[in-house]
Amino acid sequence: MDLERSPLALPFPEIPPIAGVTLRVARAQYKTWDRCDLTFVELAEGTSVAGVFTQSACASSEVELGREQVKSGTARALIVNAGNSNAFTGYRGREAVEAIQLQVSEALGCSTQQVYVSSTGVIGVPLPMDKARAGVAGALASEPCEWEDVASAINTTDTFNKGAHASAMVGDTRVELGGIIKGSGMIAPDMATMLGYIFTDADVAPAFLQELLSAANLGSFSCITVDSDTSTSDTVLAFATGKAGNARIEGWDSPGADAFAAGLTDMCRQLAQLVVRDGEGATKLIGIRVSGAANDESARRVGLSIANSPLVKTAIAGEDANWGRVVMAVGKAGEPADRDKLSIAFGGVWAARNGLPVEDYDEAPVAAHLKGQEIDIAVDLGLGEGRATIGTCDLTHGYISINADYRS
Amino acid sequence: MDLERSPLALPFPEIPPIAGVTLRVARAQYKTWDRCDLTFVELAEGTSVAGVFTQSACASSEVELGREQVKSGTARALIVNAGNSNAFTGYRGREAVEAIQLQVSEALGCSTQQVYVSSTGVIGVPLPMDKARAGVAGALASEPCEWEDVASAINTTDTFNKGAHASAMVGDTRVELGGIIKGSGMIAPDMATMLGYIFTDADVAPAFLQELLSAANLGSFSCITVDSDTSTSDTVLAFATGKAGNARIEGWDSPGADAFAAGLTDMCRQLAQLVVRDGEGATKLIGIRVSGAANDESARRVGLSIANSPLVKTAIAGEDANWGRVVMAVGKAGEPADRDKLSIAFGGVWAARNGLPVEDYDEAPVAAHLKGQEIDIAVDLGLGEGRATIGTCDLTHGYISINADYRS
Repeated sequence: MDLERSPLALPFPEIPPIAGVTLRVARAQYKTWDRCDLTFVELAEGTSVAGVFTQSACASSEVELGREQVKSGTARALIVNAGNSNAFTGYRGREAVEAIQLQVSEALGCSTQQVYVSSTGVIGVPLPMDKARAGVAGALASEPCEWEDVASAINTTDTFNKGAHASAMVGDTRVELGGIIKGSGMIAPDMATMLGYIFTDADVAPAFLQELLSAANLGSFSCITVDSDTSTSDTVLAFATGKAGNARIEGWDSPGADAFAAGLTDMCRQLAQLVVRDGEGATKLIGIRVSGAANDESARRVGLSIANSPLVKTAIAGEDANWGRVVMAVGKAGEPADRDKLSIAFGGVWAARNGLPVEDYDEAPVAAHLKGQEIDIAVDLGLGEGRATIGTCDLTHGYISINADYRS
Repeated sequence: MDLERSPLALPFPEIPPIAGVTLRVARAQYKTWDRCDLTFVELAEGTSVAGVFTQSACASSEVELGREQVKSGTARALIVNAGNSNAFTGYRGREAVEAIQLQVSEALGCSTQQVYVSSTGVIGVPLPMDKARAGVAGALASEPCEWEDVASAINTTDTFNKGAHASAMVGDTRVELGGIIKGSGMIAPDMATMLGYIFTDADVAPAFLQELLSAANLGSFSCITVDSDTSTSDTVLAFATGKAGNARIEGWDSPGADAFAAGLTDMCRQLAQLVVRDGEGATKLIGIRVSGAANDESARRVGLSIANSPLVKTAIAGEDANWGRVVMAVGKAGEPADRDKLSIAFGGVWAARNGLPVEDYDEAPVAAHLKGQEIDIAVDLGLGEGRATIGTCDLTHGYISINADYRS
């Protein structure tokens, strides 16, 4: 199935080389396609690592192993397989990952625990070990490549290559962050999975890198949704090579910790938004700003209830300022809400305030706003100080075409 | 918008008259349409009542009042307005309901608390009190009508009239149950709402009727979903006129209590399935049988996670035995699950057992099953004894057309 490039696509950004990060791609031919589908990133000795993973109770072997590996705090390599997720393949799936780890550790002279593996694609089929072996060997023998090459090689049904750049001043040292991500649903195990990788030359202690990544995740990857479906393989890893020469960031008291945290947060938000921009069938990017909730977590849940509502998403697809559907989605969220304190705005124009339609509500500017590509929905619950912003996309015939008309 | 009759529609059944129940309809003209849109059901003195209502935190005034009214246990009339849900209309919405209650109570010589009102249709517009008043007057002056007339008058975007019949032997007395329901999404406040009404001539104490209805609801209306969206107005009311002449059913020890409970449960399941059959855009009815869960409630949640997954629903629409999407939906349910104990079958054929694809899996009978209109998915979690069966429908271009292409 050929998918058209998302109308919300952004051009691939300039990302500078990150010292200590060497990018390579190869053709493992996990599917019969004419493209690179194996990514091999070599990381300098001493690289710190942190990760966040899917909450799925049926996670893949890659996720199970990765959760354990990040506890060690160090990394030397990342391998990403595209075209086969190796999920729901039992002990054979685990053996396939361990074989890759062994091959790479022997080539680089590192521990198998320092080799991180991700896989995305069809599920229920164990990763073919011969193809993986040949692919890794091919990558090892190849010339280093560019950021967009790896961004492309990790894609499956994505319609554009997704990357981001950020930087921060750590003391007197400028550190760079480069990131790539793939994903276009939230997300089908056989069609797509969110995999994100962030690389920086900053020197950051692993425990603090994990703290920062977990915090940034809460406001970025945990605040987006395409279709409410959570992959068994979702993974975001952050690698810090330490080659920039800054004094190691050990915690919040270290010089530049705030700046680095801001850069990492910026990076996560950029990457998360790119996934929504490639949402299956998406024609509009929707930002849902929830305020006045009992607390921030309650605001996030209310926002996700709105963002996951098929009726809200189809209303936006239809350019219909249907605030009744927003009321419905607030009501079903299972969070504190009071119908008579609820206010709703589209594009900054309040349609309902304190549980009543606004008397002199002017629909003309709202109709104009809804014809655009970036839609703003504000919901004030009128209860407390909790806030969250959720990113999603609309639900269109394109989503149905991708997921129903296509046969696996 | 003219909607085509659902391909899953059933013919309207024969429902006998229920003693003590008088049906009338009228044209309130809540919308500019050529049909009856106000239903007036008069109930004999001494009628018991029970109800279950939406869990929405933003429920309509009708629901708020109804929740209080059923505590009294008696009813004399039911009014259903179609075309305007009167939801999110603040104090004016409440005044409109109270005006109807007053008008009906004066006509029948009963308490306002014995007059039950439901409304379904567009939200955010207070129910026009002049139209409601004229409609009620028109109904009072009209001849009684048939079951299918009231089943039709409560509809909004429904594509067929939905009713059911059951009976039970209470001691030596045969009692009849007649029910009607409307709803085609789960459900948009401005497009549809699930409203169900059950009438019986049995003599049942209100407290026990409530106990039975609440229990039946758990296995019927709480086990269906079209699109995961919960209306602000969902209501099911059961009325028992006592005209059959049976010895009053006071509790489980009363003669015929088991038989009546079975009849009521049968009625609720029939009505619930009819709503799924009219699911917006539905082309296939899906039954999801979950077993081996930690407990029954856990099984229900896992089943609803599968039934609400856009990716599972689109796979069924595409006649694709995509069990990987079922694994994904189990994994995201937030309930106990173990990937390596999970088994999945379509149409009775196991595709995966204990976390592994079945070696000699024959897809041919599964493909044939998926081409049919009634799809069976079985999921065994391999953990405990919990069971549930969930009913839903597929997600198709029709759903998008109804909810996105249409402008309110």
